[in-house]
Amino acid sequence: MRVLGVDPGLTRCGVGVVEGVAGRPLTMLGVGVVRTAAEADIGGRLVGIERGIEEWLDRFSPELVAVERVFSQHNVRTVMGTAQASAVAMLCASRRGIPVALHTPSEVKAAVTGSGRADKAQVGAMVTRLLRLSAPPKPADAADALALAICHIWRAPAQNRLQQAVAQHAAARPVTALKGRTR
Amino acid sequence: MRVLGVDPGLTRCGVGVVEGVAGRPLTMLGVGVVRTAAEADIGGRLVGIERGIEEWLDRFSPELVAVERVFSQHNVRTVMGTAQASAVAMLCASRRGIPVALHTPSEVKAAVTGSGRADKAQVGAMVTRLLRLSAPPKPADAADALALAICHIWRAPAQNRLQQAVAQHAAARPVTALKGRTR
Repeated sequence: MRVLGVDPGLTRCGVGVVEGVAGRPLTMLGVGVVRTAAEADIGGRLVGIERGIEEWLDRFSPELVAVERVFSQHNVRTVMGTAQASAVAMLCASRRGIPVALHTPSEVKAAVTGSGRADKAQVGAMVTRLLRLSAPPKPADAADALALAICHIWRAPAQNRLQQAVAQHAAARPVTALKGRTR
Repeated sequence: MRVLGVDPGLTRCGVGVVEGVAGRPLTMLGVGVVRTAAEADIGGRLVGIERGIEEWLDRFSPELVAVERVFSQHNVRTVMGTAQASAVAMLCASRRGIPVALHTPSEVKAAVTGSGRADKAQVGAMVTRLLRLSAPPKPADAADALALAICHIWRAPAQNRLQQAVAQHAAARPVTALKGRTR
């Protein structure tokens, strides 16, 4: 599967496209950063991010867009801009009917390094190794976007099995019993 | 001037159009709510908000869109959705070249009731009086959107005078001295 990872941000929005399936070597198809000027007004910056994301969707036609899940308790100073940039990325994908998946920063770190508390350098080093690159992608936002795409490709089979199991479980039990359990 | 006020939210995004100038009776041209289903995925909800806002822009051709400024410290549970809905509203306006203005909830309350701590009922009552409506617009998000538009129309002359004063001040002083003052 081909996944566009998006590490949302107003100043630097990391984007990276990875192709592959779990258990096989992965291929990087492209990596970059959509930038907007800090002096521009917020509306203009969001338009810039929309244009940038649209170009990446046009160029690589991903089957899925994986976006970092933004939490309000993290990075209070920049969280609004991050949430707004992520909204634009999700909007661009959904408008085209491309599914969107969200992964938390610790899920991404755990997927590529084995530790949910890994630092930026460790994530960059593992992305470089897993995609067989000659050097870590810069800036860190670009490496994080690739890590998001890798995380999705590796987690997707487990997520699908989980969804299937839940669906089978639901089908096998009377609806009332299920309602009682889930409430 | 004709202003579209937007009280952003994923479940209920309040929208209201007010026409007028400061110091004269104001006219409400339209009020409503753009709703999206809580069960829908986030990307689909953002697409729904985009469609809704586009319809309001098409129908009323506002000269400016006034959006509530979202703070990360308020309503932590819903702040992400609010930030994302506001991003879509600002994007829709900026894409058409329509200027966007942001006002904080307390600026809006202070503008229409005289108190930055007024409650929803007070805001609704004043919106009803100022626009000479027969009943307060429901839900509160719709009334808040009208309050945002009124706030902008009333604050705009003061904001313009302030910007002119800052520009004149900057023009009258050597750049180095200005830099020293502003840092």
